[in-house]
Amino acid sequence: MPATANRRVLLKSRPVGEPKPTDFEIVDAPLPKPGDGEVLIRTIWLSLDPYMRSRMNDVKSYSAPVELGGVMTGGTVGEVVESRSPAFSPGDFVLSYGGWQTHHVAKAGAQPGPFGPLKLDPKIAPISTALGVLGMPGMTAYVGLYDIGQPKAGETVVVSAAAGAVGSAVGQLAKIRGARAVGIAGSPDKCEYVVKELGFDACVSYRSSDLGAALKDACPKGIDVYFDNVGGDVLKAVLRLVNPFARIPLCGLISQYNATEMPPGPNWAPVLVNRLTVRGFIVSDHADRLPAFLADASRWVREGRLKYREDIVEGLDQAPRAFIGLLSGKNLGKMLVKVGEDPTRR
Amino acid sequence: MPATANRRVLLKSRPVGEPKPTDFEIVDAPLPKPGDGEVLIRTIWLSLDPYMRSRMNDVKSYSAPVELGGVMTGGTVGEVVESRSPAFSPGDFVLSYGGWQTHHVAKAGAQPGPFGPLKLDPKIAPISTALGVLGMPGMTAYVGLYDIGQPKAGETVVVSAAAGAVGSAVGQLAKIRGARAVGIAGSPDKCEYVVKELGFDACVSYRSSDLGAALKDACPKGIDVYFDNVGGDVLKAVLRLVNPFARIPLCGLISQYNATEMPPGPNWAPVLVNRLTVRGFIVSDHADRLPAFLADASRWVREGRLKYREDIVEGLDQAPRAFIGLLSGKNLGKMLVKVGEDPTRR
Repeated sequence: MPATANRRVLLKSRPVGEPKPTDFEIVDAPLPKPGDGEVLIRTIWLSLDPYMRSRMNDVKSYSAPVELGGVMTGGTVGEVVESRSPAFSPGDFVLSYGGWQTHHVAKAGAQPGPFGPLKLDPKIAPISTALGVLGMPGMTAYVGLYDIGQPKAGETVVVSAAAGAVGSAVGQLAKIRGARAVGIAGSPDKCEYVVKELGFDACVSYRSSDLGAALKDACPKGIDVYFDNVGGDVLKAVLRLVNPFARIPLCGLISQYNATEMPPGPNWAPVLVNRLTVRGFIVSDHADRLPAFLADASRWVREGRLKYREDIVEGLDQAPRAFIGLLSGKNLGKMLVKVGEDPTRR
Repeated sequence: MPATANRRVLLKSRPVGEPKPTDFEIVDAPLPKPGDGEVLIRTIWLSLDPYMRSRMNDVKSYSAPVELGGVMTGGTVGEVVESRSPAFSPGDFVLSYGGWQTHHVAKAGAQPGPFGPLKLDPKIAPISTALGVLGMPGMTAYVGLYDIGQPKAGETVVVSAAAGAVGSAVGQLAKIRGARAVGIAGSPDKCEYVVKELGFDACVSYRSSDLGAALKDACPKGIDVYFDNVGGDVLKAVLRLVNPFARIPLCGLISQYNATEMPPGPNWAPVLVNRLTVRGFIVSDHADRLPAFLADASRWVREGRLKYREDIVEGLDQAPRAFIGLLSGKNLGKMLVKVGEDPTRR
């Protein structure tokens, strides 16, 4: 039975510190209607990603904040249910930026590339992977590690949030290049997953009593690339172990996304003394790398060299709770909300 | 009358915080004798540079610390007084790394390039410039700004310690590339020098009551390159004004060289959000750029496009006091100790 309403998760209030369920509001709105050249999409999968926390603040960042009362933004995989564009037909699966809602209208061809409506072929890979290992998180790992980190065979690559969507890919990509891969994660379970299932050489819990000593044991030859997703104390510990000319692709600062005041950062002496290169990056600046990423990553997934896990919650109403958990590291693998039925998984 | 003794400044104790005169000891030793392939050099000019402070600590850095009781290290320009190498004759002027003493023996050809015994032609430029605008500080500016900072015409370049040997060159090199040059210095006199004599577009005193506001006024289009010599509060103020994709060549952290504990650094959020590139560098890693630097810089000095000043103290005994002053920003221009008579300036 076709839906008659569009359920949406709105930003009700800007969180102070950790978001609370009451910062969100769930409302039903009329189904939107596609205009000429547009399609109506039913969301199947909603991606939850740490960057969304920044969008909840009213501060200048690399993209605009979500407005109060507006729908939370986010990447989605869905099914076209009505098309007024010759480029799409009902039943097509698409990657788009639909946000936290059950339906949305997208302009066909308006945002080509990994962040716009892009047709997906379920025969090539599960459609949900377009939000994970074969989507933005996978490409973030690819661009950040290969283009910025540039690990050489035999070098040591450390990645934080190693059991997450980006981190789990980073370590496997490091192994593919012949580097030593060391993860940092939040629990023994995550570390076991990272080493035993994903093939990292070692993994250290950032909650260990002496993170510095544990990291040193895991990196006997020092650290040549640190792919940073978290900042904070982990970054400080890494900076004590970096080798000359090490590279730090800075991808995220999850440890401070809920902070009400910006904490101080590490002293820059190691950056100078070791001639480090620290580079912040946003994957959307690197859209030219999409073809190479998709070709490489989909081959590696098929070959079993690039594994992934999905951490799935059922139902749009669960999105706020799952997102709050994501920020405190409760997920293992790519965090997804199953918003609607996935016909390809029947 | 030839000297019969070698006066030397030794490191007597490792300073805690700001060095004191009593951390140094001045002693007379016998004149050293050159062996086969060596030359005896009489020092004329001794360079004082902020990096020397790090060498006084017993910590791992990019080069070994000065030993307790050892001669303070440093770049020198001198005259060959005895040669047992066919490559040098008495009366030759040379750049070498003689340290804080009146005489030293150097192995001819042992350290080619800007940091070893290198014959100087006083007809091309005053021999003291081999320690400043045409030496290590000038080349530091050249490599850091052009190779790492890569300013484009119309961009805004900010440099701290702008009246010092490196900073004064950075701003002028920025102007040569068509960029806007903004200095940060410690006094109105220095700012006046930087703007009126060196041609910077603006200069801000880091002692001004609202550094952030003053810097914003001086950089109406934001900051594209920050050549950092100092770290600390100036770095924090700059990070609030950086443009997307700005570059930060990190050359020094003078503000903390006397610190007894490493102060925290700036939060890294601006590095991520603005996709900055921060790169620590040491000029000696870039010796391949020496020919290009010397060709460009000596031409620009001749053309009057690259000006410099020397801040000279007389006599080796004054070196400790001058060095202590350098660390608190008392110098204007390249800090030099005149250790012996300069026949080219008679």
